[in-house]
Amino acid sequence: MHIGVLTGGGDCPGLNAVIRAIVRKGVSVYGHEFSGFRDGWRGPVEDDARPLGIEQVRGILPRGGTILGSSRTNPYKVEYGVEKIRETLERRNIESLIAIGGEDTLGVAKKLTDEGIPVVGVPKTIDNDLGATDYTFGFDTAVTVAVEAIDRLHTTAESHHRALVVEVMGRHAGWIALHSGLAGGANVILVPELPFSLDDVIKHVESRFATQHYSPILVVAEGAVPQEGAEVLKSGELDAFGHVRLGGIGQWLAERIEERTGKESRAVVLGHVQRGGSPTPFDRVLATRFGLHAIDAAHERDWGKMVALQGTDIVRVPIEEATRELKTVPLSRYAEAEVFFG
Amino acid sequence: MHIGVLTGGGDCPGLNAVIRAIVRKGVSVYGHEFSGFRDGWRGPVEDDARPLGIEQVRGILPRGGTILGSSRTNPYKVEYGVEKIRETLERRNIESLIAIGGEDTLGVAKKLTDEGIPVVGVPKTIDNDLGATDYTFGFDTAVTVAVEAIDRLHTTAESHHRALVVEVMGRHAGWIALHSGLAGGANVILVPELPFSLDDVIKHVESRFATQHYSPILVVAEGAVPQEGAEVLKSGELDAFGHVRLGGIGQWLAERIEERTGKESRAVVLGHVQRGGSPTPFDRVLATRFGLHAIDAAHERDWGKMVALQGTDIVRVPIEEATRELKTVPLSRYAEAEVFFG
Amino acid sequence: MHIGVLTGGGDCPGLNAVIRAIVRKGVSVYGHEFSGFRDGWRGPVEDDARPLGIEQVRGILPRGGTILGSSRTNPYKVEYGVEKIRETLERRNIESLIAIGGEDTLGVAKKLTDEGIPVVGVPKTIDNDLGATDYTFGFDTAVTVAVEAIDRLHTTAESHHRALVVEVMGRHAGWIALHSGLAGGANVILVPELPFSLDDVIKHVESRFATQHYSPILVVAEGAVPQEGAEVLKSGELDAFGHVRLGGIGQWLAERIEERTGKESRAVVLGHVQRGGSPTPFDRVLATRFGLHAIDAAHERDWGKMVALQGTDIVRVPIEEATRELKTVPLSRYAEAEVFFG
Amino acid sequence: MHIGVLTGGGDCPGLNAVIRAIVRKGVSVYGHEFSGFRDGWRGPVEDDARPLGIEQVRGILPRGGTILGSSRTNPYKVEYGVEKIRETLERRNIESLIAIGGEDTLGVAKKLTDEGIPVVGVPKTIDNDLGATDYTFGFDTAVTVAVEAIDRLHTTAESHHRALVVEVMGRHAGWIALHSGLAGGANVILVPELPFSLDDVIKHVESRFATQHYSPILVVAEGAVPQEGAEVLKSGELDAFGHVRLGGIGQWLAERIEERTGKESRAVVLGHVQRGGSPTPFDRVLATRFGLHAIDAAHERDWGKMVALQGTDIVRVPIEEATRELKTVPLSRYAEAEVFFG
Repeated sequence: MHIGVLTGGGDCPGLNAVIRAIVRKGVSVYGHEFSGFRDGWRGPVEDDARPLGIEQVRGILPRGGTILGSSRTNPYKVEYGVEKIRETLERRNIESLIAIGGEDTLGVAKKLTDEGIPVVGVPKTIDNDLGATDYTFGFDTAVTVAVEAIDRLHTTAESHHRALVVEVMGRHAGWIALHSGLAGGANVILVPELPFSLDDVIKHVESRFATQHYSPILVVAEGAVPQEGAEVLKSGELDAFGHVRLGGIGQWLAERIEERTGKESRAVVLGHVQRGGSPTPFDRVLATRFGLHAIDAAHERDWGKMVALQGTDIVRVPIEEATRELKTVPLSRYAEAEVFFG
Repeated sequence: MHIGVLTGGGDCPGLNAVIRAIVRKGVSVYGHEFSGFRDGWRGPVEDDARPLGIEQVRGILPRGGTILGSSRTNPYKVEYGVEKIRETLERRNIESLIAIGGEDTLGVAKKLTDEGIPVVGVPKTIDNDLGATDYTFGFDTAVTVAVEAIDRLHTTAESHHRALVVEVMGRHAGWIALHSGLAGGANVILVPELPFSLDDVIKHVESRFATQHYSPILVVAEGAVPQEGAEVLKSGELDAFGHVRLGGIGQWLAERIEERTGKESRAVVLGHVQRGGSPTPFDRVLATRFGLHAIDAAHERDWGKMVALQGTDIVRVPIEEATRELKTVPLSRYAEAEVFFG
Repeated sequence: MHIGVLTGGGDCPGLNAVIRAIVRKGVSVYGHEFSGFRDGWRGPVEDDARPLGIEQVRGILPRGGTILGSSRTNPYKVEYGVEKIRETLERRNIESLIAIGGEDTLGVAKKLTDEGIPVVGVPKTIDNDLGATDYTFGFDTAVTVAVEAIDRLHTTAESHHRALVVEVMGRHAGWIALHSGLAGGANVILVPELPFSLDDVIKHVESRFATQHYSPILVVAEGAVPQEGAEVLKSGELDAFGHVRLGGIGQWLAERIEERTGKESRAVVLGHVQRGGSPTPFDRVLATRFGLHAIDAAHERDWGKMVALQGTDIVRVPIEEATRELKTVPLSRYAEAEVFFG
Repeated sequence: MHIGVLTGGGDCPGLNAVIRAIVRKGVSVYGHEFSGFRDGWRGPVEDDARPLGIEQVRGILPRGGTILGSSRTNPYKVEYGVEKIRETLERRNIESLIAIGGEDTLGVAKKLTDEGIPVVGVPKTIDNDLGATDYTFGFDTAVTVAVEAIDRLHTTAESHHRALVVEVMGRHAGWIALHSGLAGGANVILVPELPFSLDDVIKHVESRFATQHYSPILVVAEGAVPQEGAEVLKSGELDAFGHVRLGGIGQWLAERIEERTGKESRAVVLGHVQRGGSPTPFDRVLATRFGLHAIDAAHERDWGKMVALQGTDIVRVPIEEATRELKTVPLSRYAEAEVFFG
């Protein structure tokens, strides 16, 4: 069988591990042939692909990013996008696509399958907010990068008796904040799922300063919002002067803490560092297993399915299960972390 | 309630994170009081303990080892061992023990509970071979240390066109070998569960050398054995001259490869480095959650139970479920990895 | 002899290693006794100190920050500051101070020595901009943190075909930018010493995008300034609305690149992460040797001197040699790096 | 000019950074052309080379090993070896060689230059034992790998109250042991330069165990020898049964400690992990600067010279200065470290 592979959406450590596993098993076990489409859905829309064999995937397992490139192109927003994909597949005699991506990419995959274009999905998001799978690859790496930073910041906070606010990724779900805050020993963790009370935060900060020996570290998801309803520009949004904002809620919070406690407070915005570079071993194993099971699904012509982690098993689920609703941090998990606040 | 905590068996990253979580939640949520017994079961047998409060657990989350010390003391092998534990608990008015340990420690915990001494268990093994839980903390750290080494060794193997055999921990179960081999891009992975054919290994090594650009890396669990039935001394066992053997099967295999392929081959034995040092974020989160749920179980006087990870949930299971039989690598998981051999 | 030790100015990895070496050698070789003054010059001014013995310095070698705390207190700006220090030393019978710090701390040390208060200096700055010493500890750690981030960002830049601007520390000297840019394979490096031409930068960025495979990474010291004379707010300064600015020149540059090339461009501001956490082995060795030689100087009552690295030797120089003028990046070193631009 | 480049001897992090710098500056600044000889001196002897341009050196800066391969071929031990090199250079119209290597490679370079074959040298040894240069690249990486292991082992030693002996590289010079021992907080450091007294070592080990809280870590260069004159097989040597020995002096010492103190003692042999993988930023900068200055020397036809680090400057010295005698650890540097013993 001739199979096309593409990676869509944001960069995520582990993409190359998925591609390698698909090709290694596809070629050596099933005897399939592969084309790598460039830059997500732009590839099949514009018929931009390159051969993808054992040689092309050598050595890519530990490398971040994606050798296929990525983009946010949506074929449903391109004129005749779906028809162009259909033509590309026919012209190249491609019998299946494997699409590795997040909510948007998988949403397109689902719609294309419904229209008769055969796609298998592999879930990808460093935010870990896709349903139907316990974890997505890239998340453990993002958390690890954040925790390395938090570990370093503890000594600065302590030596200078100041509060440090670490803003991590997570527009709509607080998984990175929750896990990196728990692992980094944060004194406050704020997530988008639960609007926070600034008064409570200040109380925790003050109680921490009161211990004398240690200074507070706060870990805040970029999508966290104050109950008080203050309008806070998000990192990456344009401000009134057309400038991209660096440091939204993290910066806002550091200013409030300094105002209200009189203690020097600083924000650190980790940004893109969280999504680049070599994946952790956990993510390499997960991504590799996703790839191995995705090629099985394509081989078995089990279109419209997505691979997913459930416990220690890789299973197949209908793509729509992953995208139906955002997997957010449940209250019970947040309550676990609250034990360590203050 | 006054609760005693102890850590038994081999060192494992995450022990301190468990202790900290137990104490933080126990003190701040339930108002319990804690004693930390020293050196595993030796502590309650010899009544050697120290107060364990918020102050004693500050800053220990990221630190490897255990602030309580450990030992392999088995109260059932000490004269009047169980009676001594009973007396210690009475003398100190301790109403519950939380025992953090592996097969041996948990086996003792189960027997003590059956005899009316109230114990809650927390599973611990870097080998990941305890039943009833998807993962144990320490395992991800051990795999991470092994993969860092394997990543480094690739460049040496390639530059010198030689085979490198990495011997990792795993006497009875090959989980560390399987995961670190998958994540490190090993060309052969050998586990105790499946006696290996030396001929097959040599074939894979030769096919790898034939690619020219890359040289073979083999990852071998210390408990792996050849089908051919050669008697191989294990790392750590005494040889005929009374010397502790460093490099059992790894060293044996490197010698066989050099003999049969004529290519220079070397063994690297990672040893104790795999079980020390700061836990990975994954292990810190898992260990912290285990601690939080263990203190819940003790608070609810749910003796004889052990906390366990199932999917993304922490649950309670009878201790004997964890120790009934070793959780070994299933054939299907090994078969996944074989795709990458050669 | 009774000796007082203090750490002043910004946090810097290696401070604890210096303190440990001073105390270990002072106690075991010379039989001296130590007091640790808290929070830099505030300690002797306010007579705030604690005993500092072998037990207090155990285990601190690999830890970032300073167990003594730090501050920016300047005794010459406190009423009767110098007199208060004199009284503290007399009251405690302290015969010598060892002051570990940067330009400000050492400047005070020099003046106090001139007024008869016996001080030995240890140079400290992550910026590496003190004269008379080849390197200061903390610098290698800061560069290492920056390079880890740059390594990660390469894959993001490549996968998304966008420019990434990494803003690193360095208000007045570009050493961190130069070394981390060289080691990270940056396509442009900008330092405060040489106002840059925006046109040239854009040219390099465009030539990099033209290679297709790789995307540009720019490393910019926070103190870099455009020749064009645009007024750029520095990171950490207050803007017109009283907000602390996060991302000064880095953010400005990313906006200009996006405007002029049409390619998506983003800034990453590493901030305080660069100055916290465990020191690299290089910094631990350097800091340890500085401590060993500083206690020798104090023992020999060689006041007014500072330890310094020259080649592989630790030597003593008059404190004023270090502070006379800022050690900036010479043109020849910058020219080396320019080979890799574009 | 057409220039040939080769890398000889053992693997060493930073080799690729040197090659990249030579080619980047040689092509873009001087307009030279390059051939990369394969596997050290085997390349020019057997006329085995490949074109080396900007494209071939892209992305190799952070990668360990050498893209050119290496070997221990000595042209003076190959029949007509020197004549064959001369013919290769003539056939390919190569006007200069740049040889990157250690004592052996540079020794050949010197002899070839004397016979009229134009060579420029770049010093390389992870052991840091070449004269005329303050440091060689690869050394800082080896020390960093060793210190990461030592940091991890501390927690294991402490939790189990046992002695751990870490055997690091260094047949003839103890630089890696000295620096990693200092940075890792070792309680004993043993180097080849100074035969050690086993009695003294045992004394230090016992005094450390006496502190209760901490357990001894000993760092031993593989070439360290006991004063008592016991014959100890070195790691990598063949034993009486023809087996390659893993763990020479380290293993021997662990056995002696266990015998004489009754405390469990284990050896860890770091082996090849020390010489593979991505170079530290320090090594990347040093290797890059060596490459930039080596191509300058070749461009200026300054044959028979080698680049070297002196302070913060890269200088040129006659090759024989580096190889005249081994740069060993001076007594004064060892004495610095002894302060921390016990």
